[in-house]
Amino acid sequence: MIPRVDAHEKVTGRAVYADDIHLERMLIARPLHAAYPHARIITIDTTAAVAVPGVVAVLTAADLPGAHRTGGIIQDHYVLAGDRVRYQGDVIALVAAESADAAHAGVAAIRVEYEPLEPLIDPKAALRPDAPRVHPERADNLIAAYRLRRGDPAAAFPSCAHVIEREYRTQHVEHAYLEPESAVAVPEPDGAVTVYGSVQHPFSARRTVALACGLPLERTRIVQTTLGGGFGGKDDTANLVCARAAILALHAGRPVKLTYTREESFRESYKRHPFIVRARLGVDGDARMQALTADVTADGGPYCTTSPYVIWRPTVQCTGPYLVPNVHCDTRAVYTNNPLTGAMRGFGSPQINFAIESWVDEMAHETGLDPIEFRRRNLFRQGCTTHTGQRLDRHTVSIAEVMDRALERFGWGEAYARGNRGRAGPDGKLRGVGIACSYRGVSLGAEGADFCSSIVEVLPDGTIELQVGVSENGQGMKTAMAHILATELGVPLERVRFLDTDTSRVPDGGPTVASRATLVGGNAVLDAVRALRERMAPALDARPGRVVTFDEQVAACRARGITLRAEGRWVGPPVTWNEETGQGDAYFTYVYSCNLAEVEIDAATGRVRVLRLLGAHDVGRAVNRQMLEGQIYGGLVMGMGLALGEIYHVANGIGVETNFDRYRLCRANQAPELEAVIVENPDPDGPWGAKSIGEPANELAAPAITNAIFHATGVRIRELPVRPDAIREGLAR
Amino acid sequence: MIPRVDAHEKVTGRAVYADDIHLERMLIARPLHAAYPHARIITIDTTAAVAVPGVVAVLTAADLPGAHRTGGIIQDHYVLAGDRVRYQGDVIALVAAESADAAHAGVAAIRVEYEPLEPLIDPKAALRPDAPRVHPERADNLIAAYRLRRGDPAAAFPSCAHVIEREYRTQHVEHAYLEPESAVAVPEPDGAVTVYGSVQHPFSARRTVALACGLPLERTRIVQTTLGGGFGGKDDTANLVCARAAILALHAGRPVKLTYTREESFRESYKRHPFIVRARLGVDGDARMQALTADVTADGGPYCTTSPYVIWRPTVQCTGPYLVPNVHCDTRAVYTNNPLTGAMRGFGSPQINFAIESWVDEMAHETGLDPIEFRRRNLFRQGCTTHTGQRLDRHTVSIAEVMDRALERFGWGEAYARGNRGRAGPDGKLRGVGIACSYRGVSLGAEGADFCSSIVEVLPDGTIELQVGVSENGQGMKTAMAHILATELGVPLERVRFLDTDTSRVPDGGPTVASRATLVGGNAVLDAVRALRERMAPALDARPGRVVTFDEQVAACRARGITLRAEGRWVGPPVTWNEETGQGDAYFTYVYSCNLAEVEIDAATGRVRVLRLLGAHDVGRAVNRQMLEGQIYGGLVMGMGLALGEIYHVANGIGVETNFDRYRLCRANQAPELEAVIVENPDPDGPWGAKSIGEPANELAAPAITNAIFHATGVRIRELPVRPDAIREGLAR
Repeated sequence: MIPRVDAHEKVTGRAVYADDIHLERMLIARPLHAAYPHARIITIDTTAAVAVPGVVAVLTAADLPGAHRTGGIIQDHYVLAGDRVRYQGDVIALVAAESADAAHAGVAAIRVEYEPLEPLIDPKAALRPDAPRVHPERADNLIAAYRLRRGDPAAAFPSCAHVIEREYRTQHVEHAYLEPESAVAVPEPDGAVTVYGSVQHPFSARRTVALACGLPLERTRIVQTTLGGGFGGKDDTANLVCARAAILALHAGRPVKLTYTREESFRESYKRHPFIVRARLGVDGDARMQALTADVTADGGPYCTTSPYVIWRPTVQCTGPYLVPNVHCDTRAVYTNNPLTGAMRGFGSPQINFAIESWVDEMAHETGLDPIEFRRRNLFRQGCTTHTGQRLDRHTVSIAEVMDRALERFGWGEAYARGNRGRAGPDGKLRGVGIACSYRGVSLGAEGADFCSSIVEVLPDGTIELQVGVSENGQGMKTAMAHILATELGVPLERVRFLDTDTSRVPDGGPTVASRATLVGGNAVLDAVRALRERMAPALDARPGRVVTFDEQVAACRARGITLRAEGRWVGPPVTWNEETGQGDAYFTYVYSCNLAEVEIDAATGRVRVLRLLGAHDVGRAVNRQMLEGQIYGGLVMGMGLALGEIYHVANGIGVETNFDRYRLCRANQAPELEAVIVENPDPDGPWGAKSIGEPANELAAPAITNAIFHATGVRIRELPVRPDAIREGLAR
Repeated sequence: MIPRVDAHEKVTGRAVYADDIHLERMLIARPLHAAYPHARIITIDTTAAVAVPGVVAVLTAADLPGAHRTGGIIQDHYVLAGDRVRYQGDVIALVAAESADAAHAGVAAIRVEYEPLEPLIDPKAALRPDAPRVHPERADNLIAAYRLRRGDPAAAFPSCAHVIEREYRTQHVEHAYLEPESAVAVPEPDGAVTVYGSVQHPFSARRTVALACGLPLERTRIVQTTLGGGFGGKDDTANLVCARAAILALHAGRPVKLTYTREESFRESYKRHPFIVRARLGVDGDARMQALTADVTADGGPYCTTSPYVIWRPTVQCTGPYLVPNVHCDTRAVYTNNPLTGAMRGFGSPQINFAIESWVDEMAHETGLDPIEFRRRNLFRQGCTTHTGQRLDRHTVSIAEVMDRALERFGWGEAYARGNRGRAGPDGKLRGVGIACSYRGVSLGAEGADFCSSIVEVLPDGTIELQVGVSENGQGMKTAMAHILATELGVPLERVRFLDTDTSRVPDGGPTVASRATLVGGNAVLDAVRALRERMAPALDARPGRVVTFDEQVAACRARGITLRAEGRWVGPPVTWNEETGQGDAYFTYVYSCNLAEVEIDAATGRVRVLRLLGAHDVGRAVNRQMLEGQIYGGLVMGMGLALGEIYHVANGIGVETNFDRYRLCRANQAPELEAVIVENPDPDGPWGAKSIGEPANELAAPAITNAIFHATGVRIRELPVRPDAIREGLAR
């Protein structure tokens, strides 16, 4: 067992989170959020706020030193809202004060006069030509759109044996990281600023802070503090929290801390995009898929964030791991005045996979085949060409193997046989099992350049410092990287110290998203090992035979004055994408996954109890089995939350749940029996053959559960989360 | 004019010194120093100290977590004295408390019972076989000794036309940096420690802290804070201050600040070594030097520090820039119970140069030649072979040029002619001029490996971060490095941000001593530029003709996903030293210098007023003329202090001066007219041809002044500092 390198500091409470930082003369900041989801701001009166004892600074949009808008793709995200608010999470003013109480009082004393406007809350309506625009300067409310064209579905449908047309919907979901947004900004003597922040990608935080402060990047340093959970949620909003703290710190000339309350975090932070997926699927007489049209509309909220990437991935993966010769897919993200949406673990996949694995299951039922047999006839095979025109021959196409391993471990046949299919047993319970499969592009793919750097330095006493351009977001990256390095060098893990990401220390390795950290970071570490060996070679060649252990090698190098520091670099294999046709080699490799679920439903109440969840994944190569299993268990339970409980209700643009008292996360006592099946087909492009697990683990539990519900009850769920009354009503029909 | 990059933050008071750091829950630490210069410790009773309200920790040697002794060369320097104190600066206990008052009270409450021992205060007596030993476990009180043997002086002296034998002595001198020792240590969640310290070489501080804390280097991070002056004095003692703060921080689990009072700094910090130099010099009938024997004894105080290096440099440079075919030189450093001595600007040269330039001047007088003519007959020439057997053909041997340029600018001939030569004018004043010349080995030479690294990163917005393995000690290194980089890349200086030295960010570049920063750092920067250009080449080759400006080049690289980060490395040309014979190519290049002084002496009082000082130096190439002049002016005035006022009196092992109220630094109103003459003969091994200035500027003013005193009065000064009554008495004879 390889223990997590940060386990001890976390369980003993010694890990330092941003809010744990206290500096002399540090001010406490508070934001004033919008009172309406959509309104014109008539006046902002800060007179009374400035007069509150202890208040040091009250800033509005008029006081901003740099760009008013930031954003990684489109710069449309207001640092402070000036003349208009576009959603409930817009910040209108910032107060910095000697104490939290004074800051609260300062915020309470700000008077804002609004002219409320009707919020756009329906993304489909927002696309109408006559719809009012969230950003009046833009031509329409379209954030981004993608299309995929292969073959001719319209021509193929008429000759299909079965055709179904369905609509699926998913909900707003909160990331629910344990630690809300937090940042401490420190003005440096030379006019620069350092921000200690709970951010998942310090380099995008640096871009945001530099832009908002009007500073060059070299005056902007971000140090990532221990991340109390992210799940993709510590990007745009967290970066803005850093920027606002930095603006206040530079203004006041004092350190400033801005930590969100849970209510502020719920209000402002981006959620998982709700999807509306409309699809038409046709199969031939052998139940082989022949044609698919899919139309996806994602509610993007008021700002772009990463929405274009969140809809691009579902475009690529719109067939699931199934061969379909004729495919048209259209995806779009739309501006609304609903809560902001953005990156979340899975990045569009959990939503599209819910739709795909539902329609596959529905079609299996339609054809009279069992769900396994139907899938088996359509699965990707080694060397096949997908609907994007990519020939899958670089890696092992293992979806059939993954499915078989999962079914066997689960005892699927027996469990499937005992399914109730709508007829409750004498105890009033209905049982059923469900399956869902996926393939998932690893890393950024054609949506961004894939690269990473690492730095390894062997210190004079033989201990080792390691830095990698991706970040520890709680997923165990530090441990995986340190483990790879220690193993390659043949030294104990304890000798390696992984340094937290600090933008002044290590080059940007791209965002720590898309389940890419192990792959890109691991490759960068291996390259650093190669470079280190290159530096050591002259010393070792000079003393053949005598230099055996790593310590002896280090001593030989020191004797020759060789500084044992090396940078490793990795750039991904080429990927391509044609924006017009949606054809190309979108990702250089894929992870194949299968989830199985067994559920029990109370016929009287419609309440669903998940009995078992199994996740099977071809991860290429297991670097750390224990952490892999942890990722799979966590992903399954998070996916179960998506299926059964988690929904951030939005009423006319305003979120209903404001804290965890109302927001229904899965609780530990609801967790089912969990099982992980790790399949290993080493990938030629992965470090030691490793691929990914973070997001694959989270993208299939929901459809596996809803398919199990269908197997138990005969009721088909097409909208998440599952409502017990919908099941009850279905059973009654 | 190239402004200092840190000028603004320093003049506005925004620069952050270690003592400016305040952290939540930070404890304040205080040391208890020895009451005697030499004693056995019978008991240490901390009971009452522990009971003082607010005291959190009281540690003695028994509580040390790691090595009890540290040291860069010999590990003989006690972190805390346990059973014996060896000088006034030994620390017996440490107290950490909630406030400075509580810490003071805690220290005052510690009871130590001593058995006082007779201190060894005479270094020559300490060498006697029957002398008690400062370190009883050692065979004798010899710290280190060097010898140089060339030709046969004993055989040569009989045939010499003139032979003189003289003894010269120099004093203890305090560095008098503005900022006393200070460090803030922070325990990290994973058991590591970070120290923010006022240290001149963060990497030697790291070694000391790691050793004393019993931690591997990877758990020990040192961040250099703005250095409020060093002059070579922020090494051993400053490192121990870091170590003691770290030990307390790890013990208490809280941040700890330890800032010395001026009195504590005076008491404990190392001083300039007093030298006793006995020499015999013979010249032939043409006044050409034929034989020299020199015997140097340096008072090393109780611990080794850098004493071996401090006596090695004078060994190499024992003839001055003059050809002498027969030379024997013996140097040694000796343990005593006097105040600690160690590195100080000049590193033994000011002391040996006082002796050399005195005996040269005395011999000139003896031969009846004027001081210039005598020197001119003996100066090093291009391609000559020195007394260490080194042929000077790699660089320009410019001592004659430097001297001539100095004389011309000074108007020497006229000034020399009006010298009083012991006969006061009608106003009771005596005027005279004096000269002193030197050659100085650049960088560490054969005393250590010469290497340095640098890291350059061009950020996506085209701004640049620069790191170098040597440190900004107030000398202007940051500015020189940023200037070299900006010039090479063709960007404005403002685009470059020099990052403070942090051992976790940049590899060790060796100590920032020996006037080496510009040379080794500059070469490392140039190599990084080369490496950066190599990384950029593929992108630039692909777009010939269109890519002209640096920004266009950066854009072209970004478009190809090239991370613009590069490490530069530099290793010095080979140097050699034979320990037996003192023969070898001790340094790979040398700086040639000449100082001229004009003095006016009040015949009645013997008081000396320096009217003019001129420093002329061949620096290879002037990187920043203004900073060079600043170094020269400062060096001249510091050298004047050595000559006329600065002495740390030691009475039976105890320093007499405890603060600046008694210690006589040169004051601004005593500063004479200062002039700098910069000679440029680009060095093949220097960046842009640059060599050094920091120490050359400080190593000749004293003998120029004492030679001027002789010219004015006929009184020869053989002991520093000059005492007015010695002049008065001399005039009376």
